[in-house]
Amino acid sequence: MSHVRILVIHGPNLNLLGRRQPEVYGSVTLEQVNEQLAILGRELGAEVRTLQSNWEGEIVEAIHGARGTADAIVINPGAYTHTSIAIRDAIQGVALPTVEVHLSNIHAREPFRRHSYVAEVAVGQICGFGVHSYLLGLRVAADLAAERRGAAS
Amino acid sequence: MSHVRILVIHGPNLNLLGRRQPEVYGSVTLEQVNEQLAILGRELGAEVRTLQSNWEGEIVEAIHGARGTADAIVINPGAYTHTSIAIRDAIQGVALPTVEVHLSNIHAREPFRRHSYVAEVAVGQICGFGVHSYLLGLRVAADLAAERRGAAS
Amino acid sequence: MSHVRILVIHGPNLNLLGRRQPEVYGSVTLEQVNEQLAILGRELGAEVRTLQSNWEGEIVEAIHGARGTADAIVINPGAYTHTSIAIRDAIQGVALPTVEVHLSNIHAREPFRRHSYVAEVAVGQICGFGVHSYLLGLRVAADLAAERRGAAS
Amino acid sequence: MSHVRILVIHGPNLNLLGRRQPEVYGSVTLEQVNEQLAILGRELGAEVRTLQSNWEGEIVEAIHGARGTADAIVINPGAYTHTSIAIRDAIQGVALPTVEVHLSNIHAREPFRRHSYVAEVAVGQICGFGVHSYLLGLRVAADLAAERRGAAS
Amino acid sequence: MSHVRILVIHGPNLNLLGRRQPEVYGSVTLEQVNEQLAILGRELGAEVRTLQSNWEGEIVEAIHGARGTADAIVINPGAYTHTSIAIRDAIQGVALPTVEVHLSNIHAREPFRRHSYVAEVAVGQICGFGVHSYLLGLRVAADLAAERRGAAS
Amino acid sequence: MSHVRILVIHGPNLNLLGRRQPEVYGSVTLEQVNEQLAILGRELGAEVRTLQSNWEGEIVEAIHGARGTADAIVINPGAYTHTSIAIRDAIQGVALPTVEVHLSNIHAREPFRRHSYVAEVAVGQICGFGVHSYLLGLRVAADLAAERRGAAS
Amino acid sequence: MSHVRILVIHGPNLNLLGRRQPEVYGSVTLEQVNEQLAILGRELGAEVRTLQSNWEGEIVEAIHGARGTADAIVINPGAYTHTSIAIRDAIQGVALPTVEVHLSNIHAREPFRRHSYVAEVAVGQICGFGVHSYLLGLRVAADLAAERRGAAS
Amino acid sequence: MSHVRILVIHGPNLNLLGRRQPEVYGSVTLEQVNEQLAILGRELGAEVRTLQSNWEGEIVEAIHGARGTADAIVINPGAYTHTSIAIRDAIQGVALPTVEVHLSNIHAREPFRRHSYVAEVAVGQICGFGVHSYLLGLRVAADLAAERRGAAS
Amino acid sequence: MSHVRILVIHGPNLNLLGRRQPEVYGSVTLEQVNEQLAILGRELGAEVRTLQSNWEGEIVEAIHGARGTADAIVINPGAYTHTSIAIRDAIQGVALPTVEVHLSNIHAREPFRRHSYVAEVAVGQICGFGVHSYLLGLRVAADLAAERRGAAS
Amino acid sequence: MSHVRILVIHGPNLNLLGRRQPEVYGSVTLEQVNEQLAILGRELGAEVRTLQSNWEGEIVEAIHGARGTADAIVINPGAYTHTSIAIRDAIQGVALPTVEVHLSNIHAREPFRRHSYVAEVAVGQICGFGVHSYLLGLRVAADLAAERRGAAS
Amino acid sequence: MSHVRILVIHGPNLNLLGRRQPEVYGSVTLEQVNEQLAILGRELGAEVRTLQSNWEGEIVEAIHGARGTADAIVINPGAYTHTSIAIRDAIQGVALPTVEVHLSNIHAREPFRRHSYVAEVAVGQICGFGVHSYLLGLRVAADLAAERRGAAS
Amino acid sequence: MSHVRILVIHGPNLNLLGRRQPEVYGSVTLEQVNEQLAILGRELGAEVRTLQSNWEGEIVEAIHGARGTADAIVINPGAYTHTSIAIRDAIQGVALPTVEVHLSNIHAREPFRRHSYVAEVAVGQICGFGVHSYLLGLRVAADLAAERRGAAS
Repeated sequence: MSHVRILVIHGPNLNLLGRRQPEVYGSVTLEQVNEQLAILGRELGAEVRTLQSNWEGEIVEAIHGARGTADAIVINPGAYTHTSIAIRDAIQGVALPTVEVHLSNIHAREPFRRHSYVAEVAVGQICGFGVHSYLLGLRVAADLAAERRGAAS
Repeated sequence: MSHVRILVIHGPNLNLLGRRQPEVYGSVTLEQVNEQLAILGRELGAEVRTLQSNWEGEIVEAIHGARGTADAIVINPGAYTHTSIAIRDAIQGVALPTVEVHLSNIHAREPFRRHSYVAEVAVGQICGFGVHSYLLGLRVAADLAAERRGAAS
Repeated sequence: MSHVRILVIHGPNLNLLGRRQPEVYGSVTLEQVNEQLAILGRELGAEVRTLQSNWEGEIVEAIHGARGTADAIVINPGAYTHTSIAIRDAIQGVALPTVEVHLSNIHAREPFRRHSYVAEVAVGQICGFGVHSYLLGLRVAADLAAERRGAAS
Repeated sequence: MSHVRILVIHGPNLNLLGRRQPEVYGSVTLEQVNEQLAILGRELGAEVRTLQSNWEGEIVEAIHGARGTADAIVINPGAYTHTSIAIRDAIQGVALPTVEVHLSNIHAREPFRRHSYVAEVAVGQICGFGVHSYLLGLRVAADLAAERRGAAS
Repeated sequence: MSHVRILVIHGPNLNLLGRRQPEVYGSVTLEQVNEQLAILGRELGAEVRTLQSNWEGEIVEAIHGARGTADAIVINPGAYTHTSIAIRDAIQGVALPTVEVHLSNIHAREPFRRHSYVAEVAVGQICGFGVHSYLLGLRVAADLAAERRGAAS
Repeated sequence: MSHVRILVIHGPNLNLLGRRQPEVYGSVTLEQVNEQLAILGRELGAEVRTLQSNWEGEIVEAIHGARGTADAIVINPGAYTHTSIAIRDAIQGVALPTVEVHLSNIHAREPFRRHSYVAEVAVGQICGFGVHSYLLGLRVAADLAAERRGAAS
Repeated sequence: MSHVRILVIHGPNLNLLGRRQPEVYGSVTLEQVNEQLAILGRELGAEVRTLQSNWEGEIVEAIHGARGTADAIVINPGAYTHTSIAIRDAIQGVALPTVEVHLSNIHAREPFRRHSYVAEVAVGQICGFGVHSYLLGLRVAADLAAERRGAAS
Repeated sequence: MSHVRILVIHGPNLNLLGRRQPEVYGSVTLEQVNEQLAILGRELGAEVRTLQSNWEGEIVEAIHGARGTADAIVINPGAYTHTSIAIRDAIQGVALPTVEVHLSNIHAREPFRRHSYVAEVAVGQICGFGVHSYLLGLRVAADLAAERRGAAS
Repeated sequence: MSHVRILVIHGPNLNLLGRRQPEVYGSVTLEQVNEQLAILGRELGAEVRTLQSNWEGEIVEAIHGARGTADAIVINPGAYTHTSIAIRDAIQGVALPTVEVHLSNIHAREPFRRHSYVAEVAVGQICGFGVHSYLLGLRVAADLAAERRGAAS
Repeated sequence: MSHVRILVIHGPNLNLLGRRQPEVYGSVTLEQVNEQLAILGRELGAEVRTLQSNWEGEIVEAIHGARGTADAIVINPGAYTHTSIAIRDAIQGVALPTVEVHLSNIHAREPFRRHSYVAEVAVGQICGFGVHSYLLGLRVAADLAAERRGAAS
Repeated sequence: MSHVRILVIHGPNLNLLGRRQPEVYGSVTLEQVNEQLAILGRELGAEVRTLQSNWEGEIVEAIHGARGTADAIVINPGAYTHTSIAIRDAIQGVALPTVEVHLSNIHAREPFRRHSYVAEVAVGQICGFGVHSYLLGLRVAADLAAERRGAAS
Repeated sequence: MSHVRILVIHGPNLNLLGRRQPEVYGSVTLEQVNEQLAILGRELGAEVRTLQSNWEGEIVEAIHGARGTADAIVINPGAYTHTSIAIRDAIQGVALPTVEVHLSNIHAREPFRRHSYVAEVAVGQICGFGVHSYLLGLRVAADLAAERRGAAS
């Protein structure tokens, strides 16, 4: 059986990772995160594709494009977590299992960061563990993808 | 007298139409909606131009571009209905009669879908009738466009 | 096949139409609205019955009476839109397809006019287009009535 | 270097697991969850101790007791997540790294399940992945415990 | 010592300036605003670069791009003032002194225009003075930029 | 000693009982409810008079009329539970012991059905038990009426 | 010049006056209030017509009927003060100067009695002075009526 | 029996009367208001003392000073209506019957003008009738003062 | 067929019954309530077991223990009504028909007593009738238990 | 006359005192607090009994037990201050004068710590003075107890 | 070492003490309170200066004047507790340890009395104990003043 | 043409400037601010008069006094920004162009500092730039004053 395919989406400002507010987000860069994801992907037998965008529309279309090209999604919607119904609708529209991840513990920050439009349509949420949030998210996404493949076969 | 010109804007995720949540949005595709609009446009003597975009910025600029190229707008702002003050300001800025339409009855869904930033600057709103929402919207937009032409002549 | 039957209900204060706040509601009288509905009804092959009432109880009972005598309802609940759960329950009780219409754009007026108890049980809502709101409402009600007939036959 | 020690706390009603609302919580029993945690613990070189309680006071005291006997805590506070400031204060009081886990996606359920008093003092939160929530939680708790050991040595 | 460099960002719909709602925004065009900024820049010994965009993502990236190419930012986020956490995070991410300006007095308009996500990360806010808001903003940004240069040297 | 006299008031839409939303309200008709009330009344030595009305004003006046003709009231105010201060004031005005009943569990339905203007002036509330709500209400109303008679004699 | 004509409307439950909650509403009956109004009317040269109704619809129609038959309205809308948008719309529709009166000080009672839909369309409000509220209301209504006559002549 | 004594207090900014926003407050000056009050006072057999102050502390002390020197108070607290608990406490402290008056209809203006701290401790409120609000207030205050005298004698 | 078995749970502070705030809760003691329940139980052919606890955890476990030992539950959760999601989850977990009762009318007391976490998972609620609330609750619980037995047999 | 008897209750997590968050709660241990209370008790002629519990049910029952064994209560309900209606009801039930104390200034911390269910039934509240809060509380409780003794004798 | 100096500030309406609402505030006069404070001051070795003012500005300036002339402040801000940010800013500005006291239990009165702007900048709050609130406040203020002296020496 | 005249008003606590919370407000004293304003005034050809007051009433009257003696106002209302409707009404009453300034960025501080009653009647607001806020405010006030002079001439 072929590899499961996971699309990892990094939302706005994550290209600044490692340089922006290291006391909140840590000092690892986005390139390093992607490398760690690739390594873990190989270990789990998952093909990992990553994408960073600061554009709400581009993220919506990346999700659309996942239909048929990915088996599950890992998404850190960044600031769009709290404002984008369009991304929420896109996830609901393509009906792929989606894992929401955040570097920081959004439930322990400003009140406006506690509500997530995405959480209501995601399978679940992992937040607060820095890069580990992504790695744990990839683990569970790989399981969800495998399950979905199984159900479809 | 020449045809009135109507710009029909489809907001984010509407490119998924017919494939996404058919129990909410029906099984007609966006292409079929556009065809029906074209047919009704011919019947009403209206030139219908359609546009779909998942990008808030692109919709804002499409509205700007309607000045001088359209006599009225029919818009289904999708998820941006509830979050985009930029689209609202664009409509208010170009001052063209605008009809807001929705496939589903947004007043009978999640609370966050009940408020529309666009409604406050549109002439009126039609929602809940699937493709008919668009067709009724086109009818009334054509009337508003003709009225406006008359007033201007 | 016989004509579809549409009951059009005008809520409180609509008997003042054409004389009350013409800058909000226009200068057409209720009699003229009813005439235009009759004409369009004939065109669409629909039998249109109209009723105006300032009494919540009377509107509730008119809706009850529509069971078996009408195939769809067009209702402008006027001020009761925002305060009457009894009318809402009546509509839900008789289970006829119902189209909510308003002359003015209730979403662009005082905040207390933006919530509609009826909208949550209606098929959809049309507002802001003056008499056109009724005419568009009749169009879509006739379609819904025909569909319902078809499904029942 | 000796094993890290992880205390896993199951809150109220989790003793019903596998029998209560399987459509929400799955059909795995608490004993099976504990077994899977033990297996993963061995794999990660972590000593896992588990505890279930329906009593807020007992959970508070279990957390107090973790000082000196555990290096990190994994807690599913169940219903107390949303009502217990005492548990929150206990976690803050013992100052051990704590991972909050939930079987279901609490952000997609009733509004009163979306706020967590614990989240604000935990390192992070994992929810929505059934038993996987616990397993992912154990993984990250083991890392946090090791880090803490390292810092202290 | 070389000139300080100021990036001035004009948000959505500001390309309509002078033509859109002149009773609110005045009759000066964006080109004229930019010219006045250039003149005052020269007077203050500041290099002024301007940018208008209707796209949230483009504004986010323009702010990212200011790292190393500008010493301070003047931003009129337009409608995004009230909805964009992404722009807020970008400003916080690049850590350049930022002055928020508005043509109109946002505190005297619709309630939804009174909250600014940007204000919480900006040095300060200037609103209500038409083109003067920009010119005052440039003055203070030039001072902040010079201070920052001084601190860094 | 003569029979106690109980007035049972059925509010709006209850004439549809048994035909409207049987999944919520059951399949018993209003006539059958009234019969069961009459039977239980005879058993309890209580004279039961029943009234159904869809009109708020008529219910207000029925309550007024209960002064001197009834010893206690059982009322299912239906939709007026949540909207009628006039009915509340009438109950408070006649100062007869009043029992509020509901067929369905109003506390487990839409939020707007959870607040009752009547509850604040009634002796108590019984809801959720279908026809049993009425029968239990009659039992307790008969007791309250007898008590009142006793106090007055 | 002929007498000014004043319509005085007493809302729901006011027929109980003098018998209902005398500690709140006093012991004067409605008949006595009407007599005092008649006496003061004669003194002021005003023709006073009074009406009591427990029916929202009847009050709406009484207001409609005042067009051409009265020069000003004094209304104590009772419980409908807080719930009836229909009465508000009727007052706004007939555009007669309207004085809102209340026996009790509604601003010092339950929170739900503090908001008045009528106040926003009335000339002013008088409350808290028992029967005096009506008498003061009649005085000012007579003045407003005379002014209106003067303006119209 | 000697004259009743009424203290009339004019709150902040009322010294501007007749010159400030005449479209809201009319063109009569404060001196003219006081003259009309004096005339009506003589007619009613009441001794009227008036005071204007822009200082909350001075108004508080004027109310304190009314103990023993006045039988009732008429107060237009102006802006302090909505912000001063100190004035409210003073009125409650001296326990003199107090009539609250306003020139404009505060219930039809900005939301923050609708709540009155004073109303909850006043006998009643009169608003919306310009100078008439004061005159009606004086009438009712004279009655309340006479009643109080009677009760005390 | 054997007797139905009913578990009656008395929540916190109910052991004080008859001695605590008799003006709110009456003068009957808990022992007397239990006796009356036993008598009515015998009359209805129901085996009644009662339990009082001031401990949330103990109530949760009593509900768990009802699985297989009771056919229905009558619960007066006392103060935990308003604060315990754990008890709510326990009731939902064991899936036994549950009747919520209260001695006092919780809807006519402090606002925080009006919301019940239990009501949303109970069959219905009875409140305000003192000991009668329990007796009526037992009646309906016996019926629900019998129904359940019937369905299961 | 014999000594007054004071029960001092320490709520959840207070057993950690001196070790938990010393920057908030100080470095004095609970044993030291109790010693200081004993010393001051002797000085004031008061018998002081102390109790610490992390269990809401245990605190409820300790309050019940104070009837007849104590003349006043000093309570620091810790986290239960903000969540326990059961403790509030217990205090109200035993009707002993109760003084609420807090080590930290709860009005200057997280918003959820500002509301106290206990405050509404306590005589008063002392907070923010560390151990002094207890000592001042004991002083005033001793006075209240003596007063109560006096009234009862 | 010289005496510590304590400034005691009595806010608005406290000059009425003993005469105003004795059921809420007791029958002791302000002079008697000041005497008791003087006596306790002598006992504690503290120099007590007292001030009563009904003027917010005067209180602000008294606080300013305490810099260098007092070591701690005891303040009963009366009604200004809930409305004055100016007094709060003054306290924060002079940075003297400040104890907030209230005669009545403000947490058990009207909702608007529960929030204190002062509490957030005071060391702590004492309320509900009548004159004792002041005396306890003086005790703790004397301790705080001595501590501060010690730290500064 | 003569100089324009600008009144600069400093609100409560600003006399502490430079000594109070320098981390928020900077270390410049009020005298230094006034000097800088005088210097800039001369440069701009404006006569600058300054006033500091801790008294709301005094500020109200200073604004009244500006009619005829000043052409524009610069005001830093300090704490009264958030609580004084009287100052707002005074500004609206004298109808002079008014610029609101703040030293700190009020939109990035406590929530209660974000609403300004003054902003709604001012031309605009400048905040966050320390002394520069005043200087920028003077610049724009001088322009507004000159414009006003021009319009009047």
